[in-house]
Order: sequence, then C-alpha cells, then structure tokens
Amino acid sequence: MKIQDLPTPALVADGARIESNLAKMAESHPGASLRPHVKAHKSTALAKRQAAHGHQTFCTATIREIEGMAAAGLGEDLLLANEVLDASRLGEVVRRGARVTVAVDSEETIDAAVRGGVPEVLIDVNVGLPRCGCAPDEAGALADRARKAGLEVRGVMGYEGHIVGLADKAKREAGCETSMELLLGAHADVGGDVISAGGTGTFAANRWATEIQAGSYVLMDTAYAELGLPFEQAFCVVSTVVSLAPKGAGYAIADAGLKSLGMDHGNPQLPGGRVLFCSDEHVTFVPGRAEGDDLPSPIGWEAEPTIRVGDRIRLVPAHVDPTLAYHERLYVVDGEDVIDEWPIDLRGW
Amino acid sequence: MKIQDLPTPALVADGARIESNLAKMAESHPGASLRPHVKAHKSTALAKRQAAHGHQTFCTATIREIEGMAAAGLGEDLLLANEVLDASRLGEVVRRGARVTVAVDSEETIDAAVRGGVPEVLIDVNVGLPRCGCAPDEAGALADRARKAGLEVRGVMGYEGHIVGLADKAKREAGCETSMELLLGAHADVGGDVISAGGTGTFAANRWATEIQAGSYVLMDTAYAELGLPFEQAFCVVSTVVSLAPKGAGYAIADAGLKSLGMDHGNPQLPGGRVLFCSDEHVTFVPGRAEGDDLPSPIGWEAEPTIRVGDRIRLVPAHVDPTLAYHERLYVVDGEDVIDEWPIDLRGW
Repeated sequence: MKIQDLPTPALVADGARIESNLAKMAESHPGASLRPHVKAHKSTALAKRQAAHGHQTFCTATIREIEGMAAAGLGEDLLLANEVLDASRLGEVVRRGARVTVAVDSEETIDAAVRGGVPEVLIDVNVGLPRCGCAPDEAGALADRARKAGLEVRGVMGYEGHIVGLADKAKREAGCETSMELLLGAHADVGGDVISAGGTGTFAANRWATEIQAGSYVLMDTAYAELGLPFEQAFCVVSTVVSLAPKGAGYAIADAGLKSLGMDHGNPQLPGGRVLFCSDEHVTFVPGRAEGDDLPSPIGWEAEPTIRVGDRIRLVPAHVDPTLAYHERLYVVDGEDVIDEWPIDLRGW
Repeated sequence: MKIQDLPTPALVADGARIESNLAKMAESHPGASLRPHVKAHKSTALAKRQAAHGHQTFCTATIREIEGMAAAGLGEDLLLANEVLDASRLGEVVRRGARVTVAVDSEETIDAAVRGGVPEVLIDVNVGLPRCGCAPDEAGALADRARKAGLEVRGVMGYEGHIVGLADKAKREAGCETSMELLLGAHADVGGDVISAGGTGTFAANRWATEIQAGSYVLMDTAYAELGLPFEQAFCVVSTVVSLAPKGAGYAIADAGLKSLGMDHGNPQLPGGRVLFCSDEHVTFVPGRAEGDDLPSPIGWEAEPTIRVGDRIRLVPAHVDPTLAYHERLYVVDGEDVIDEWPIDLRGW
C-alpha cells in the first residue's frame, strides 16, 4: 500500500528515521541507562523496537500503559512514573509476574502501594517543576516510612520538566544541574540504586541520573525540533485535501483537525504551506511556501506548486504525545510505501 | 457505584441535565427540524436518547460515525456533512439498507459519491466560514452536474461557523441572516427540500434553515456557556488529586491532562479553583475560589475549603468535542450515583 491509499487522517512515521533515532539514543544511552517513556507513543510495537535496541526497562504514565506493556511481554522492569491512589490493578500485574515500581510522594501514595500489592517504589522528588514530587528534604522520611511499611525503595526520581524545553542550551544545562543537585541531595537521604530523571530535552545534559526517562526522541514534534537535538522529525499526520476555497481565495481544506492533532502547543506546521486554523475534522491552510519559510520537509515531501482536491498534505503536530493518543494506529513507511502498521494499543487509563 | 469510586480521569455527565437539554431543544426544534450532530458526543447511546426525543435524522462528520450510527439501527437518514474523496465505505452502508446523504462542493466530490455508490447529496455552500463549500453562485451548476451524474440532490447545506460563537447576540443574529441569505440564494438555484445549517450557537436565530445541525447543546462546554443559551453545562472530567505541593506552595496536582481534555480553546475551568497548567496526564491547580470567581458549579459540586490527596475535582473542558474523542466511555450520574455507562463508540475515522 502507498501513503496515497491510506484512509485519512493517518498517523504516518518514517521507519528509517525511527530506527536512526533509536540507534542514536541507544549509542548515547545504552541498555538500562535509558528507561524509554512509552507515554510518548503508547505502542507496544514501538516499545519492542526500543527493546530490540537494548532497553529492557520502561517508563509509563498510566496504569493502562503498565497493563499493556506487561501483557505484551515487556514487563521485566516497569516504572509508573506517576502517583496513584488505587494500585490494585498494578498489584494484579505484579501477581502475573511482571516487575512494577510506582512513584510515591506522600503517605497516601505509599499506603496505596502497600494496599495494592506493589512491592517496589521510587520516592518522587520535586526538583522545580510545579507538579508531583515531595520536597527534597522530606524524601528521606518518606523512604523510611515506605520501608517500615514493607516496601522496597529503589531510589528516587525527579523530573526537570520546567527546563527540558528551554531553547537556550546553556540555560537548559544549568537548570538541569540545579535540579539534579536537589535530586542527589534527596538520594543521599533515600538510598537505593536508582536516580531516574530527564527527558528528550535533557538526555545529554543530565549526567547525574542513573537512567533517563525519554520518549519523544523516537518520533519528535515541532516543540522539541527547536532544541537542536540529534533526532529527526519522524512522524506526521497525512491528510487529504477535500475542498478548495471558492474563486481563488487562496486557501484549501484538508481532513485532519482538532480530533487528530494535539493542540496544546498550537497549530501543526505544514511544510509547503501555512495553517490558518483547525476545526474538529478540518484544517484550513494556504498552500505554497511563504517568504522566509524555513520548515523542514517531513519524510522527504515537497509541496506541489498548486494543490488539487484529492492531494495529500503532511502536517507536523506541535506536540507528539496528545496527537498519538487520538489515533488507533501508526503507519510505518519507507518512502511512499506503507511497510507496517503498529497499533496505538496503550491509550486510555 | 459512586463518582468517588470511578477510575480517573473519568468523563462524567449529569443524566437529568442531559434530559433537560434534550427536551428544551426538542420543544424548540421538534423532529426533523433538528438534525442532531453526533460529532459532539460520538456515542450511539446518546444518539438513541436524541431519537427518543423525536429526532430520526442525524448529522455526522466522519465515515466512521456513519458506519456506527447505521450499525446501531439509527440509519433512517444520515448526513455526512463533510466532503470525502473515497465514498466506498459509505456505499457499503447504503447497500446494507441505511439512507446516506453526503455533502459535495466540487466535481471531484460529486464523482466520489457516484463512484462510491452514495445516491443522495447536498450541495455544500460557503456562507462565510473559510472552510468547505462552493461559492454560492456555483451551487446551481454543481447541482446540475450531480443530477446529470445520476445523483439525487436533496438541497443545500451551509454552516455559519464563523459567527456561531459570537458573544454579542445581535451580531450573531445579523451574521446568521447574512449567511442564510447566501444559502437561500444558492438554494433557489439548486432546488430540493433541504436547507441544512446552523449549530448550537444559532439554533434559535437561524429561522431560514429547514433543519439545524446542532450537537454541543446536549453536553455544552465553557465556550458555548458564554453565549447565554438555555442549555446547561452537563458534563465534566472527574480527576483525582494525586499530589500536593511541598510545604504549602499552594498548588495541587490531579490526574487529568492533555490526553483527557480538548485543549484548542485553552485550559479547562475548575469551579472552586484555578488551573495553572496541564501536562500529559496532570493538571496543576490552585484550590479555592479566587476573588471575582464567578464560575458555575458543575453538577452541584462545591470545592472543599482544603484539598487532600485522594479528593476528586471536576474540570469543565473548554471544548467538548475534542475532549470526548479522547475517552472510551461517558459515565452518566444522578447526584453522586453512577447510573449508566455509555460507550464513546464513534471515535476514529
């Protein structure tokens, strides 16, 4: 099958670019020094490619992701890098033979791990991002409490998410160091082998973590594309032009929209055109490159000088994770040939 | 089951408010004068409630929605209010006994209807929104062409989407009239019984259409809530507080985020609190009402003066349609009791 024959909107990824991104990361962070974050792609098929590149430990954001990874035979060492108040489904995964570790940052989440039957935890430490995590100087006491409750405390995690997107590399690196000083301080109180942190934006800068939680590096998006990372944009949303503006008003309409694109970082980019706005199932765009356009072409595609009804366009979503969560499958391509189809099988909660 | 027992994030709707909204619309626009748009809720269970209120004709935005509605026995008169270049799956639905009409606005889309075996069309007319639709003065020629190709032309459709969200009622009404003058002009050239237009924002103002395509009125969202419509906000996303900020920093974190909330209209509202930002699976918020807050309480809920880990919060998404598209089911509640569970079974394409 060719890209041109896919029902649209279709999530399409370049197989060679995925392999290149996987290989670059595996060379830089081999084996367990990377804990690939599956929230970015929600696909056990893609996780198996990460396993083929030597990574056997995985990071997740939802209970469903843990369940799906274990069911797919990828349960050697699964971390739920998130707090839960009901760990009973995680306990069930453990009883079926997978290794599950859950993040805790409070007495309530420690109690939930005990109640649910999850034997191992990481103490989640707030290192600057206003999200989950205890204060660094409270981590030791929480670890003591967890151990008294019978849990194995494997170490700490702390996500420097407030700085992973900084465009200024020096600021990103300095911010990372500041955050990791906090995390190492907490680790000194907590103990354990694991210092889990980082993301695609800081995978290289973060020299302190024992494992990096990166996910976006496989597919990339426009937000991360601005950081000068070694990974290539590898996916796009293919959409069919279904209508042209009346009488040369200069815009066209294609069949991808708010329900096929993560919109929290704004409109998708359209190499060879300008997106005007998105509706539920439509994108209205102006074909043709404007002066000053400097967008990379996704998957080797160049815009036609004119556009016709039935043409395909290729949109680069601003944010990969919420985009993937709308789609049932990812089509893997080699040039114009569709060579594989990977279910996005870890959606939902 | 109680709301407190639901796995979160959970899409929750108030059964009584849904029924009230359905009844108000059915009284104002009985039977076929409303063509409920299922894209807003993507649930055949909810569509069956609309049918119970007397509406047997439905509007859709995707081929999947047509297939699902027909399979659920709701195929008496289905309109795909959207252009498609491959109508073969629609033709299959027709061959199985459903009535399907598809919008066309070009030679290519007329040819696709013929090729796919869809016997009936509406001429889609651009009435001001820069999206699909032919120029009003081209509609007659397209209708001629469609009829020559053997299609039944049932009439016209034209969506005044550029003005349905105008907060100023007088401007909304004037804009609606201007758009409908264009549509009536096109209809004079096209013929047929159907003039299909409108939406929740203009259901009352649009006195020219023979049928109104409204969908959001059933559940509502924060965008439509500002228009002074008679419909009540009927749904929210219930989320569990999983973490508190260290040492009284004043924020808390709950487990709903970019993958459970449509974000194109911005952050969700939190009655009894202020949303700071959303991540993939988290919302960081400040509990408690700020001075000047004037948010309605969703489903009768008032914020606790203090918030604890394990509490539930109720977020009102800014845009209903892309929010629903992330969820597998809608929980229907009566007070705190969960009384039904409706699959969101029309997702995807």
